[in-house]
Amino acid sequence: MPTSEQDFLSVIDRHFPNHGEHVLLGRGDDCAILDMAVPGTPNDHAGQLCISTDLFVEDVHFRRSYFSPADIGHKALAAAASDLAGMAATPLGFALSLVLPDDISDDYLDQMLAGMAALSSRLGIPLVGGDLSRGPVLALDVVVFGRPGPRGRLLRRAQAKPGDALLLVGDIGLARAGLAELERKACCVLDEWPAALLAHLRPEPRIAEGLALARITAPDGGPAISGLMDVSDGLARDLPRFLGQCGADLTLDCDDLHPEVAAYFTANEQDPVVAAILGGEDYALIACADQKRLPLVLAEMPQARVIGRVSATPGVRLNSGQVLRQGFDHFAKPDEE
Amino acid sequence: MPTSEQDFLSVIDRHFPNHGEHVLLGRGDDCAILDMAVPGTPNDHAGQLCISTDLFVEDVHFRRSYFSPADIGHKALAAAASDLAGMAATPLGFALSLVLPDDISDDYLDQMLAGMAALSSRLGIPLVGGDLSRGPVLALDVVVFGRPGPRGRLLRRAQAKPGDALLLVGDIGLARAGLAELERKACCVLDEWPAALLAHLRPEPRIAEGLALARITAPDGGPAISGLMDVSDGLARDLPRFLGQCGADLTLDCDDLHPEVAAYFTANEQDPVVAAILGGEDYALIACADQKRLPLVLAEMPQARVIGRVSATPGVRLNSGQVLRQGFDHFAKPDEE
Repeated sequence: MPTSEQDFLSVIDRHFPNHGEHVLLGRGDDCAILDMAVPGTPNDHAGQLCISTDLFVEDVHFRRSYFSPADIGHKALAAAASDLAGMAATPLGFALSLVLPDDISDDYLDQMLAGMAALSSRLGIPLVGGDLSRGPVLALDVVVFGRPGPRGRLLRRAQAKPGDALLLVGDIGLARAGLAELERKACCVLDEWPAALLAHLRPEPRIAEGLALARITAPDGGPAISGLMDVSDGLARDLPRFLGQCGADLTLDCDDLHPEVAAYFTANEQDPVVAAILGGEDYALIACADQKRLPLVLAEMPQARVIGRVSATPGVRLNSGQVLRQGFDHFAKPDEE
Repeated sequence: MPTSEQDFLSVIDRHFPNHGEHVLLGRGDDCAILDMAVPGTPNDHAGQLCISTDLFVEDVHFRRSYFSPADIGHKALAAAASDLAGMAATPLGFALSLVLPDDISDDYLDQMLAGMAALSSRLGIPLVGGDLSRGPVLALDVVVFGRPGPRGRLLRRAQAKPGDALLLVGDIGLARAGLAELERKACCVLDEWPAALLAHLRPEPRIAEGLALARITAPDGGPAISGLMDVSDGLARDLPRFLGQCGADLTLDCDDLHPEVAAYFTANEQDPVVAAILGGEDYALIACADQKRLPLVLAEMPQARVIGRVSATPGVRLNSGQVLRQGFDHFAKPDEE
């Protein structure tokens, strides 16, 4: 059995070609892009379909002991929708495949679907299909579909150039603190670390921020940012995927973190900045922008923070020193992490 | 917990509206159809996207004791692709979400993916995405994407009119005989009932037949058949879904069945015709055609067999008598079937 998601993707690549007549972008980005354009008609990118898939499996991705059923429904959809945000795609619809164990009551199912429906309605992403089966654990597989946003742009990863500024929208490490606390207490009490717990239980896909970032237009008419990705496996693991052949020098201190991240990891005798970079399930967005375009991006998107600079030297360095270890892999067993 | 797929769909409908700005056809047919057309450009149906989802879960849909890993990979994709066949859609791509238990070896995974890749290549349906998780049982969720075929037609169910001929392409009951025999022996020996066993282990999605049926054109320029659906839960369960408000009178005897179906159920003291109609996982196609167009359809598609006639009287009657019980529901527990 493959021991990491990367190993598994290598096995997949050995069997399945990663291209096809209608495949504009294959496996390996936030979403795949299929070409739905009609030959002979103007193709302004609106014939492009983005697809992404997210499994949410009991005792791997969540526990029923501290997730409410509504949290489960919410997060399964939120995690998948975050991949649309990571390409600045507009939500079109989603499919839900649901594996239900025998002990799930009608009321539990009802609350779970209500949690999912509330987010679906808020994001304007209708449920268009799915499947259902019995099974030994509760598992949700959510497949999201999207189309290019208002300017027809879809932003990919691995577009970074040396010298580009690295931008972050959203908090890193907050969901990691939440997970650690929920696992420690084995129940959910929103008293001491409410933002951290909610970041883990109720992450918010940054659809609006992804679209807003993509909409910022440089003087040459193109997008002001040159690459976009959602941070779902932790910055340490996702940043190399974002950077492609490049490296990066990060400049981050405690002031860049959510106060609960700084306080939580300090209280638990861990370096808050390192813990934040290891992160996991942050559902933040990272983008890169040429330094000339950076002021425009920051003016239009004040909540974006510069967290470093793309480098021609491979590897990711933190505050001119430490090289980062890898982040979070749902596929790795806990003792391998 | 809902006790049937229909109960579950009612719960879903309570929470999620079954429409949306880009939803041309919502839940409830073989596939949903999303509108990818670009406003202001000619819309000749090629901007339509078909989506369908199929869960394939160990000990619910298959057993590792008699499915080879390659059979599992093949059937997970075949079952999903059959929904594209049921709308006469052209395959575009698919996503695979895979839950792997710890005891799956590298070699087992390799063979499973090889079985899936062989069908993927043969159908021209590339793997464009997916996800992976550990979990307690082997489970595959396959989501297929398709687009309208050469004449831009997508054929829906619930289009039948009283008097229409009902047509069947493919065998019914064969996979049911295969399943019964595999469960009885608890292993796969292709000696006595090879066609039945292979119908259960290695079903063939009837993509080409679906496209060929949709391509037949009536004198008015429209499609000669007026409705199409794949039979996956057994004719008894699927026919009412196909018929909508109508009923049907079926005319079927042992000569209409595959010889192994007739022989197997006779040997096991069951009525072969009733067993065939109960069926399950047949992946045959049913279509309906106005009687005036029937000769054209049969001339162009000689393997289609007339199995009855649509009636204004609700309910399904077999050979002027017996009213059918329901078919196969993966969601029902075995003792409820």
